[in-house]
Amino acid sequence: MLVNNVPYRTIFLKPSNAKAVHIIDQRALPFKFAIEELINVDDTAKAIREMHIRGAGAIGAAAGFGMYLAALEAPQNIGFGQFLRLAGKKLIATRPTAVNLSWAVERQLDAIAKGTNFDEKISIALETAQAIADEDVEQCRKIGEHGLKLIEEISKKKDGQPVNIMTHCNAGWLAFVDIGTATAPLYLARQKGIKAHVFVSETRPRNQGASLTAWELENEKVPYSLIVDNAAGHLLQRGMVDMIIVGCDRCSRNGDVANKIGTYLKAVAAKENNIPFYAAVPSSSIDFRISDGLKEIHIEQRDEDEVKSVTGKDEKGNMQKVILAPEKSRALNFGFDVTPARLITGLITEKGVCKADEENLMKLFPERKG
Amino acid sequence: MLVNNVPYRTIFLKPSNAKAVHIIDQRALPFKFAIEELINVDDTAKAIREMHIRGAGAIGAAAGFGMYLAALEAPQNIGFGQFLRLAGKKLIATRPTAVNLSWAVERQLDAIAKGTNFDEKISIALETAQAIADEDVEQCRKIGEHGLKLIEEISKKKDGQPVNIMTHCNAGWLAFVDIGTATAPLYLARQKGIKAHVFVSETRPRNQGASLTAWELENEKVPYSLIVDNAAGHLLQRGMVDMIIVGCDRCSRNGDVANKIGTYLKAVAAKENNIPFYAAVPSSSIDFRISDGLKEIHIEQRDEDEVKSVTGKDEKGNMQKVILAPEKSRALNFGFDVTPARLITGLITEKGVCKADEENLMKLFPERKG
Repeated sequence: MLVNNVPYRTIFLKPSNAKAVHIIDQRALPFKFAIEELINVDDTAKAIREMHIRGAGAIGAAAGFGMYLAALEAPQNIGFGQFLRLAGKKLIATRPTAVNLSWAVERQLDAIAKGTNFDEKISIALETAQAIADEDVEQCRKIGEHGLKLIEEISKKKDGQPVNIMTHCNAGWLAFVDIGTATAPLYLARQKGIKAHVFVSETRPRNQGASLTAWELENEKVPYSLIVDNAAGHLLQRGMVDMIIVGCDRCSRNGDVANKIGTYLKAVAAKENNIPFYAAVPSSSIDFRISDGLKEIHIEQRDEDEVKSVTGKDEKGNMQKVILAPEKSRALNFGFDVTPARLITGLITEKGVCKADEENLMKLFPERKG
Repeated sequence: MLVNNVPYRTIFLKPSNAKAVHIIDQRALPFKFAIEELINVDDTAKAIREMHIRGAGAIGAAAGFGMYLAALEAPQNIGFGQFLRLAGKKLIATRPTAVNLSWAVERQLDAIAKGTNFDEKISIALETAQAIADEDVEQCRKIGEHGLKLIEEISKKKDGQPVNIMTHCNAGWLAFVDIGTATAPLYLARQKGIKAHVFVSETRPRNQGASLTAWELENEKVPYSLIVDNAAGHLLQRGMVDMIIVGCDRCSRNGDVANKIGTYLKAVAAKENNIPFYAAVPSSSIDFRISDGLKEIHIEQRDEDEVKSVTGKDEKGNMQKVILAPEKSRALNFGFDVTPARLITGLITEKGVCKADEENLMKLFPERKG
């Protein structure tokens, strides 16, 4: 997408330097647009763990490129394979909930193993990393096309009045390599001249809605209103929202969706008020190995400091962390929650929109049956 | 309640000076304990509007004392009555959702009208203000006793294991004159040695949970965990909460409860997970004139700046406002939402606990029938 009229991806190689990977450092947004250079797997793991780059698709791509950087730095001897396996473990350990990390690492390990010499292995690692990134973009584009139809239908019913869409956190292009999932239908709707307005939930504790989704929509000139997370129920109850589209960090084969903490509250309130609730789910986020999201998806617990404090820009223009609660207070910080399939109107995948259950997911992904 | 071992109310007269009213300035909490002096009705209106003092009971008492200050400053001539009526309008206009303001103002106007000379009118205004404050304390104490029984029952079922109580915003003693409503049962449970643990929702945008409820519980040594508002659903879904007790800014005669924005999301998620959801409702917060809370309670919209920014303490110990979203972003800021009676397990009033409907409220308050 465009940043100050220059097209960017969240993660990319510069043609002049194939030994480093570049990412948009999302910690500085919405106030500063900064590019960070990653030169080895430890850099990459740190960037994922400390959320310089975040979002299911983007960290999957980062893990893919991290494995390429690992291949570059690995000893070109019998230790090569072990170095890569350790690198993969480091990357997977950074964020326990999203499935994209292990998916990208395993894909790289399988692909690299096919190389017959070290040069070839490194080439394969680069090609695979690029392929993971390109496929992510393609998946997002297709999700956009399928989701667009849902927005179009509502727009027609409303005689072209703006479609009010609520989202949560950031499942925009900053969470992927480009375009995004939950926002992709919106960007395509805008291209087609369909009017939409977005309710952007700030998404405490890390405020990815306020800092990232708002910044994306601002840049793309999509009308939006920022709200605190607490306000979602009131808007749903009062008929101010036509549909919800959220992202997905991990989806089980029965259609349960783990996503940023707070998603579940929106889903419950949407059901209560008969508002359609969709999750945009690229197949890279579907964990076909598990069939009960509530029981089998590990929910990451993060540092209590994220709850007790927040970072923003002070009146002098400096980034400041401020504490909000008594210094001695204790906080609990779950990063995600799981929305059971029965609360989900549909999953928007790159293969089409389906009901959130195993039967319908298998119709779209028959190769994952059994 | 105690602050550094000294008993305080949120609003009080100093024996040495009956011409001024003192309040705890809640804007400085949890980092600084500050007392503010109010000397006229404009001071008082500003303190309520800008939330130096907030919470249904506390602002009701503030309106009562504000009318006393108005009586002190009113011209002792034919303009006295008009001055008081204007003062009442000013006070009522500060916060449109809570019923306590108009209730306290009307009570003062009726009482003061009975005085036969100006000295007597001023005496009546002082007595009435004190009575409103004292009755608020007494209502809270009784709510505590009725709510205590609910906690005791759960404690017995859990064989004395800590009862996990979730609350929202601050309906603690800082929101009233003393003791509080939602927290009153907790404080009484603690006196009886019943173990409890509280999940304190930070309550964006103004974070009264993180800054006030956490500070209260810290001072009273009640164990608690701070959470972001988004985490409430996950905790309810995972069986980590035994009951919810929230406060109330206005309750209709059919049992709908307007309370701080975000309350409704907790109620919906509690229902979904069969967790008891109680609202602590002193009769001063029941608006017997209205019978449909969803249609008839005006929801205050506040400045978008509250959503776009937050105030906390920086690393140097200074209070700082930091902005969290793009400068150009627009925000919507509803102060309250309405939880329909059907989602409420019971109302804890000073007369007892009842089902949230007109029939059962009328059994407790038969004088309000018809």
